[in-house]
Amino acid sequence: MTPEALGALVRGICAAAGVDPAQTESLADNLVWNDLAGRRNHGVERLPILIERAAKGLIACPCPAQVTRIAPAAARIDGANGFGQHLGRLGMDEAIALARGAGVGAVGVRDSNFYGTGAYFVNLAAEAGMIGLALSNAFPKVAAAGGHRPVLGTNPLAFGAPAPGGALLVDMSTAALAGSTLRAHVREGTPLPEGLAVDERGTPVTDPVAAAKATLLPAAGVKGFGLALLVEVLAGVLTGAGIGAGVGSLYRDFDRGGDSGHFFLAVDIGRWMDADAFAARMEDLRAQLEASGPDGAVRLPGAARWQTMAASRRDGLALAPATEAGLRDLATRYGVAWPG
Amino acid sequence: MTPEALGALVRGICAAAGVDPAQTESLADNLVWNDLAGRRNHGVERLPILIERAAKGLIACPCPAQVTRIAPAAARIDGANGFGQHLGRLGMDEAIALARGAGVGAVGVRDSNFYGTGAYFVNLAAEAGMIGLALSNAFPKVAAAGGHRPVLGTNPLAFGAPAPGGALLVDMSTAALAGSTLRAHVREGTPLPEGLAVDERGTPVTDPVAAAKATLLPAAGVKGFGLALLVEVLAGVLTGAGIGAGVGSLYRDFDRGGDSGHFFLAVDIGRWMDADAFAARMEDLRAQLEASGPDGAVRLPGAARWQTMAASRRDGLALAPATEAGLRDLATRYGVAWPG
Repeated sequence: MTPEALGALVRGICAAAGVDPAQTESLADNLVWNDLAGRRNHGVERLPILIERAAKGLIACPCPAQVTRIAPAAARIDGANGFGQHLGRLGMDEAIALARGAGVGAVGVRDSNFYGTGAYFVNLAAEAGMIGLALSNAFPKVAAAGGHRPVLGTNPLAFGAPAPGGALLVDMSTAALAGSTLRAHVREGTPLPEGLAVDERGTPVTDPVAAAKATLLPAAGVKGFGLALLVEVLAGVLTGAGIGAGVGSLYRDFDRGGDSGHFFLAVDIGRWMDADAFAARMEDLRAQLEASGPDGAVRLPGAARWQTMAASRRDGLALAPATEAGLRDLATRYGVAWPG
Repeated sequence: MTPEALGALVRGICAAAGVDPAQTESLADNLVWNDLAGRRNHGVERLPILIERAAKGLIACPCPAQVTRIAPAAARIDGANGFGQHLGRLGMDEAIALARGAGVGAVGVRDSNFYGTGAYFVNLAAEAGMIGLALSNAFPKVAAAGGHRPVLGTNPLAFGAPAPGGALLVDMSTAALAGSTLRAHVREGTPLPEGLAVDERGTPVTDPVAAAKATLLPAAGVKGFGLALLVEVLAGVLTGAGIGAGVGSLYRDFDRGGDSGHFFLAVDIGRWMDADAFAARMEDLRAQLEASGPDGAVRLPGAARWQTMAASRRDGLALAPATEAGLRDLATRYGVAWPG
């Protein structure tokens, strides 16, 4: 399937399901970008649950989000329970606009929902010639360092910067195991290594089906815990969003919105040096990295995404069977023609 | 020894060794703070090497640093090869001043030197009612994910926020093993676990003496590598400082300054909500964390520092024998009276 056809299908389903045009556009661009980049677990695979929540009135359509500039370089967004993918775009676009005027822009979003990959948002900053940071808190799934019970979310952290040949894109869960990776192990029936998940007594869990209900551990112990707190404080505490147990799950909580929070930072490189000078310095960094290991072994994070994206644009996308079944079901239910 | 007596000793030695008053003040406050907080490997233990470098003209005294505001929320500092502890303070103070006006402030420092603990600087932000981020690149000591040769520094990342009972302070090396921890193992003669350091063929090194010359691995593999790049791009590439091999070591390179770079961010909480509301939300977070593990097992990062600091202020500081010997040697050489 071509990216254009997949995008048109997503737009058709969203429109027929009552999602407003602005959020439809945000969702289609975000989900298809992730599929093109090979991050399928944040691509159109998510459309059924997103449409289900919107249809049940658990995500606001249209989204009456309020953007308030609170300082020359800062804005607050009350997300009014819209789609996270839409509010994330609104947030990063606003951070970029603020950074154009003030050199740096910081935006906090409250009352939002699961926003997909931070990589998509920091890439918006990179496309604008800026360095971007995107943080989101999430429902409790991860133990604190020293604890056994879930208290913080996988609280992903994403960072991006323009680079010759494709932006540097860092996007990581602060847990030892991302929810999306866990679901991949469940799908493929492969066991987990120890040290990623524990049961309520702190005993290691390696069966991925059991692990889906278990508590994850923070990545690298106290370091991942510290990063999860960095995310929780900036995206949750500061923005006015839910904190810890105050954040709901897309898949489990059908009596409430997510109330998750996001934090976006954009830094306008042009205030520091011209784009060519920055590019030459990124190239220096890349050359040092590539020379530090065996041929081809060290790559700038993001390189795999850009390679997959080029291949997807050239060869088209092949949907996973379960993903295709989910989309066909939606297309049938909402009377949208299947492409081709 | 009281903190006041230790501070006076540091000030006396610095002044007699030709360090200018402004940098003397920055050094004394920084080193004694770290000793009080129990972070001895970033305390007065470092004074001999710092004085040695200044005496050899490898650190500029006085430091003709240039602060340039490049946007309403951003400034660039040419550190002119001053003490990192001094330039770090200048950088965070400037970020705080910018954030007072613009809600957020970002400051990049180039041509600096090893700055000690980021925790000291983010605590300055917390004391000003702000959230702080402090990043520094460092000389190559750590492999990339997939590589065996050193290419990035331990590139520490620090984050702080005001909290009732003592600021949240997160301060971590992005390597699997911090240089300071390594030196502690060498001092105590205890072996390292596997997975922290490798030799030039990628074989694990567990002997701490051998590890001191070996290559460290990034924390949690690709995650630590991504974080080290976040630090390298913001503190090194963007600021105009050395990148990778362009950064020198305090202990090894006696033919040059460090040319390391720092990046400071301050976010003025008062633009988002009043201090009491923020404190109540931090208290909610802390209560959830503490309830998520066995009694006393989960603590807010920073709590150990504040507890040690209270004890040090009450009971005074006992210097480690090697540290005391180093200071006595300096005091004798520069004709400064030993306190007491």
